[in-house]
Parts: sequence; C-alpha cells; structure tokens
Amino acid sequence: MGIPSFDDRARYLRELTEFLRIPSISRDPVCTGDVWAAAEWLAAKLAWANGRVVESEGHPVVLGEWLGVAGGPTVLVYGHYDVQPPGDLSEWDSPPFEPTVRDGRIYARGATDDKGPSVVPLLVAEEYLARDGALPLNVRFLLEGEEEIGSPSLAPFLRAHREELGADLVLSADGAMWRPSERSIAIAAKGLLSLGIRVTGPATDLHSGRHGGAVANPLHALAAIVASFHVRDGAVAVPGFYDDVVPLTDAERESIARVPFDEEEYRLGTGVPALHGEPGFTTLERLWTRPTLEVNEISGGGEYTVIPRTARAWISCRLVPEQRPARVAAAIEKHVHEVAPTGVEVVVEPELGGVPAYSLPAEHPAVVVALETLRELTPDCEPLLVRIGGTLPAATMFEKELGLKTLMFSFSTSDENLHAPNEFFRLDRLDEGLRAWAILWLRLAHLVELGVSVR
Amino acid sequence: MGIPSFDDRARYLRELTEFLRIPSISRDPVCTGDVWAAAEWLAAKLAWANGRVVESEGHPVVLGEWLGVAGGPTVLVYGHYDVQPPGDLSEWDSPPFEPTVRDGRIYARGATDDKGPSVVPLLVAEEYLARDGALPLNVRFLLEGEEEIGSPSLAPFLRAHREELGADLVLSADGAMWRPSERSIAIAAKGLLSLGIRVTGPATDLHSGRHGGAVANPLHALAAIVASFHVRDGAVAVPGFYDDVVPLTDAERESIARVPFDEEEYRLGTGVPALHGEPGFTTLERLWTRPTLEVNEISGGGEYTVIPRTARAWISCRLVPEQRPARVAAAIEKHVHEVAPTGVEVVVEPELGGVPAYSLPAEHPAVVVALETLRELTPDCEPLLVRIGGTLPAATMFEKELGLKTLMFSFSTSDENLHAPNEFFRLDRLDEGLRAWAILWLRLAHLVELGVSVR
Repeated sequence: MGIPSFDDRARYLRELTEFLRIPSISRDPVCTGDVWAAAEWLAAKLAWANGRVVESEGHPVVLGEWLGVAGGPTVLVYGHYDVQPPGDLSEWDSPPFEPTVRDGRIYARGATDDKGPSVVPLLVAEEYLARDGALPLNVRFLLEGEEEIGSPSLAPFLRAHREELGADLVLSADGAMWRPSERSIAIAAKGLLSLGIRVTGPATDLHSGRHGGAVANPLHALAAIVASFHVRDGAVAVPGFYDDVVPLTDAERESIARVPFDEEEYRLGTGVPALHGEPGFTTLERLWTRPTLEVNEISGGGEYTVIPRTARAWISCRLVPEQRPARVAAAIEKHVHEVAPTGVEVVVEPELGGVPAYSLPAEHPAVVVALETLRELTPDCEPLLVRIGGTLPAATMFEKELGLKTLMFSFSTSDENLHAPNEFFRLDRLDEGLRAWAILWLRLAHLVELGVSVR
Repeated sequence: MGIPSFDDRARYLRELTEFLRIPSISRDPVCTGDVWAAAEWLAAKLAWANGRVVESEGHPVVLGEWLGVAGGPTVLVYGHYDVQPPGDLSEWDSPPFEPTVRDGRIYARGATDDKGPSVVPLLVAEEYLARDGALPLNVRFLLEGEEEIGSPSLAPFLRAHREELGADLVLSADGAMWRPSERSIAIAAKGLLSLGIRVTGPATDLHSGRHGGAVANPLHALAAIVASFHVRDGAVAVPGFYDDVVPLTDAERESIARVPFDEEEYRLGTGVPALHGEPGFTTLERLWTRPTLEVNEISGGGEYTVIPRTARAWISCRLVPEQRPARVAAAIEKHVHEVAPTGVEVVVEPELGGVPAYSLPAEHPAVVVALETLRELTPDCEPLLVRIGGTLPAATMFEKELGLKTLMFSFSTSDENLHAPNEFFRLDRLDEGLRAWAILWLRLAHLVELGVSVR
C-alpha cells in the first residue's frame, strides 16, 4: 500500500498556522496562559490517541498513545511546543506570531523550532488512520513545554511517568538537520558543563589612582586565570581535561573527511578573519569530535578609574563521549585554584545538571533505517552521518531515565533562523518530513517483523 | 597685627549652608540652572572683587580680583563649585542637599569637595578687608564648574583669559589632605592615560556549541592580552613602560620611609586578603612614586552559550614625572598588537587628553611657606610631605597654559566621603583652614618683601 498521499497541504498549513499563532514562550511568565493554550491545542489534536495535558513541576507535558499493533514496535515521539522569545520585534519582516508564507517558507517564531517539525508526526498518524484505520506501529507522544529553558522538569517527569512511556525507541522531531543542501542523520551530540568563576579583591570598589599598584586587581587575576585555560594555538591547557577523551580512529577520521565541508566557506559564514583551533584536527573534527572550553562572559568594573571589588566569568564546556561532567568540572576547579594569583579570593561555581555527551552507533538499526528512508526519499542524494557540536539534554534524559536511544528525525534545517528574528520553516521540508516519517514507521515496523530489535 | 580673629562661625556656617543647598551637579543636564545659580552665588559673594560669571565652552567660570598691593605678589585662588551626583539617596543619613550639622561635621554633597574648602579663601579675604580695608597680597579668584567631569573647558578658558589671570602662584582650595591625623602638603600627583581595547572575532555572536573550538573567542584573546600586561608578581610587563621613570633616590626613599604608614592598617582598610604590587618597593613607594597600569573594565558576552562577537577592556595608567602619556600609550598599543592572538581583530583606542604627572619641588618657596604655616598653626604636629596617587588635571593646565605652579592647600581630608554618600566636612578643619590661609597669605607677602620670588 505504501505511504499516504499527503495531498492536503492547505489543511496542514492552516493547522500549523493556528498552532504558530499561540505565543507559547516558556521563558516569559506573562505567557503561562499561552503555554497552556498550546498544550491544549496539541492534546485536542491528539484526541484520537487519548491526548491529554499532564502537569509537571513546570510547564505541562502533552501525552497521547495509540497502541493498536499487538507485538509491533513502539516508538516514543518527542517534540516541544514552547518557543523562544521573539527578541527585537523591529527585526522581524512580519510579526512573529502572525505566521506568513513567503517564497515557499512559513515565517513565525517556532516555525522550525519546533512547532513545524512537531506537527509532522501528528499529521502522519492522522493520514495513516484516515486511510487504514490504523498506524504501522505503536506510537506514544510526549511533547514538552520547557525545551527552550533547558527542560528542567523533564527528567523528574520521565521518572514519575515511566509506565506510561514504555517504548523501544525515541523518535525526536527536534534537532535540526545540518544543512539545507544535504540530508543528514546526527549520531552524536556533545555534552554540556557550565560554571561560573568569581574573583573578589577589596571590600569595595577602589579608586584606581589612590590604590592602583598596591592591591591585586580582580580583573587582572581573572584575565590570568582565563588566559591559562588555553595554550596559544587553541588547545585546552587544563590538566586532565582530555583524560577520558577516546582518540579518533582512522576509520572515523576517514568518514569525517568524506563529508563535503569547505573550510573557507565556513570561515566566510562566521565572518572570522581566520579559523582557529586545536592543532592536529580539521575544522570538522574540532566541531564534531573534540571537547571545548569556551568563556561565554567576562564582566567587572566600568569605564572609569576603578579597581572593581569583583570580576566574574561564565564558562561552558562541550564534552565528548566518556567525559564525565563532574570530573571535568573538578579538573577545571583544581586548575583555577592552582593558577589563581595571590591577593584575591577565587570561587568556582559549577552549574548543577551537567549533561554528558550523547551518541548513537552508526550501525544502530534506527540509524540504518533512517538512512534507508532518506535514500528512498531522495535517491540522488546520499545522506550524511553528522555530529552536533551542541547538546541534546532530552536524548540524554531518555537514555538515563527510560533506557531508550533517540533518533533525531527533524526536518528543520539549522539555517532557518532558530532563536533569531525571521525564523522560518521551508514548506518543501514539511512535505518531505511527512513522507519521511511515514516511510520510517513502515520500515521500523518491517524490521521488527523480520525479528530485528530497534532498541 | 597678625591674622583676623575669625570669630563669626555662625555666619560662615550659614553662608556655607546656603551654598550647599544648591544642587550644582555638573554631570546632570537637569541641573544646568543650579550650576548657574551656584556660580551666581559665588559671583555675588565676590562683589567686592568685581566677581563675575564668565561663560566658557561648558559650565561658566567665576572670576574676581583684588589687586590693591602695588609691587606685591599675586596669587590665583582656584576652587570649584560643581559637585558629584548624590548616588543612592537611601544611603544618605540626611538628604544630600539639606546640609546638616552632626558631631562637629557638616553633612552635604559638596561639603568637602569642594564647596567647604572653596569658601575658606573667600571668607579669609572678607575678614582681612573688614578689619584692614585691604588684603596682605593681590588675589585673583577662579572657581570652575566642571571639575567633577574632568575640567574639559578649563584649558581653553585659561588660554582665552590669560591676561585676566596673571599671577605668581596658584593656591588650590581643592585637593584633599592625606589623612585626618596629620597635616600634609602634597608635592606630586600622578598623570593619567586611559585607553580602550576592542577585540572583534566573528561577524555576529555565535552559538558556542555549534562553533566552539573552530573560531577564536574574543574573550580568550582579550584575556591573553590583559594577562600579558603584568608579570605575576605585579610589575608591568609592557616593554618600554618604565623607560622614562626616574629611579627613586636614597634620599627620597628615606623621606618616604619616615612617613608613618601601617601596611596592615592599610590592608584592613581596603579589605584585601593580602597586599600585592611591584617587588622592590614598599606600599607607600608604590602608591606615591611608581606608575601603574590598571584594567578598570572587561566586558563581553553573557551568561549563556555564546561566543561573543566583541570583547572590550578599559585601561588607565597613572604616570610619574618624565613619563609622557603619548609615549606610554604607544608602548601599550605596540605591545597589545604584538601579543594579540591570531583569528581576531584588535583595536586600541587611547582617550584624548592624557595628563602628565604634576610635581612641585620640596624646596619650592610655596612648599616651604606652606610647611611653616602648618607648623605655626599646630606646633606639636610636624607636617608631612606627601604625594597623590590620583591626578590633578587643573595643576597641569595651570602650568602648561599660564606657566604657574600650584600649591594644594585644601583643608578637606580624604576620609570625608568624597564622591560617596554622607559626604561631610569637619568644622574644626573649617576653622583651621581660615587661619591657615590667613597665615599663608601673610607669609607669602613677607617672602616677596624679602625679595624671594614665589613663582
């Protein structure tokens, strides 16, 4: 029978537009009612699957399930209905909560992150049901409302609702594809560890004329600490930072080298005068496989003659498989105290909840099936296996709390102005996403029929 | 005949209170009318000396003169009638512009900086005139309204009014004494040079997960630059920074060592865990005689996963005699470009108008007379020769534009909450200041009668 025809784009667009009109900004307390409204909209759309809004410690979670295939595999579909704040409204060509179609794209806050991609599996399920009265496999839905604020309630929610969430595999409608020009499946995402450093010197701000040269300046001390984090060529200089990093194999390096990537194009895209990073690795190896330590903020003092009482830095590290956030944090803390100059007090404050790296083996059946799906969909375009320099906390939580692997299968693309003005979603990617999810479900069901586990 | 009796303290206090009620905040455009009102108040008080409000490029200057002693010396009395903003009103025990006497002190914004000290020479002149119908020497008055914003119009004003300002010596009613426990005369103040450093990397802020490790982070580069300014023990590491510094002589070191100064008390006063500075010098030598490079601000990025496009630092140097601001700025700029890492663009922006150090030889007749005056006034308390770590731009301008040396003769003390809440002026220092100025004028006149120049 193949997949449904998905020939009702006008309806898909009308419904997505309705969803996008709701300003469900999870970070803005003023929008709490809108966050609930977006959850209710999803629950209503999932009425056929017992769709329901379930309270969590924070914003609610929408659950639903259709379990009509006895002995069939069960996938847990993940997405999120909350959005980022729109930022400066004057930078939007059309208002962020008045969805507008231009040039084959729908423009709105949340269009690509993640309302557009999230409605894809819902529409796929509806079309299967309409045609067949059944889905190819069992599907549970979990759509959260706190992804844009770091999913603080998701792990406890998963623990509390473990029985309602039994599945073989998570299919995520979140996690943008690498580039619009190639189809890709992400098999790794880096972990995340954040920490603050606070350097305190005198009891109050001091006049830099009256006291300069006689007391340690917290800004000087902080600069010395920050400067000690890297060697000049870009490698991290914190002892122990690389201890648990598994060296790249020749096969991995070859596989990455086969990915089309133009360093000069990347340089022009970022606008830097020259690329810079750890020696011995290509830019793509650095982005995908090497842990990083980046200082996100330094602040202290003012543009007048002051020796400030305090100077602060905020740091985040991206971790690779086998690195444990707590161990890396301890190495950094030890290093900071070792290099801290005298005459000041230095406090290191790791943020709670470091996230280890996430990875899915390239040979995992979900990856194999996803690649086959993409090949079937666009036979002329061999899909890429890619890695993500960013972090996917939800995938880590599904693994830890439910023991499930997550396949990223979003048809968002990372150039669609995520978190920026004029966010958009390409409508041809909506069409492609519908067909891709439909094929993926058929293939996963078939695999299990053949006796292969998709766990 | 000696000095007048100065027994009309009630009137002095009444008039000072009237002056202090005027919120002549030079930095606040809302107060322009009050700034003028304070100038008019002074001009009226100087009516006997042809007191007048004279426009400048900025806030007006009050001029006046009494030139009744043919062949006598002429002093130019300097002070300022503008004040700092009051800051957080909730930190004031009584409102900043409702002068209040408590415990022998008058509390108000401007009480000690510089309205109290500025009225002292006006009252001295009035009392001489009332008693003798004449002053002991010729006096010109120049009271400016922009000291608290860096005296931007003073140099052009001095150039434009050179003929009206002919004198032998400037007597400044501004420039607080070192400590309340000792009488002191300042014979040196450091120069000032400020500059900004801007490090720019990518064309926009980048996601530190998606791009970390592949592009240079402007905060890392700026920290490396700032860390290169000092060696770990506290000395400035910029090549050429100390080139023009004249080494301390043994005599100078001995003279400084005789000044009572308790390092532990100073440490407790600043609240630092330990003192810190250039090796080979005592704390007082560092504060008074060594040039400094202090970073006043570093800013860039935010407490989220960003590689910021730009990071900025603001730096100020305090210079000692023979150091030229432009030459030091050039040395710093050269050093910054030499140590700047690749992958970023670095711009150094020196602020216009660096001020060289100011000094008055210890054997200058004005210093000798000032010390004799203090000895006569408080015979049990040998006055100290001190230096100021801060900068006195007006003294530098008087020297450059009028060829005049400046004697600091303020009876403000540096612990009287200058620029802070609950600014106050000790009333016994008001009394002492009146008598001291009266003695100083007599002695300066006498010196010239003896044929000694006070230039």
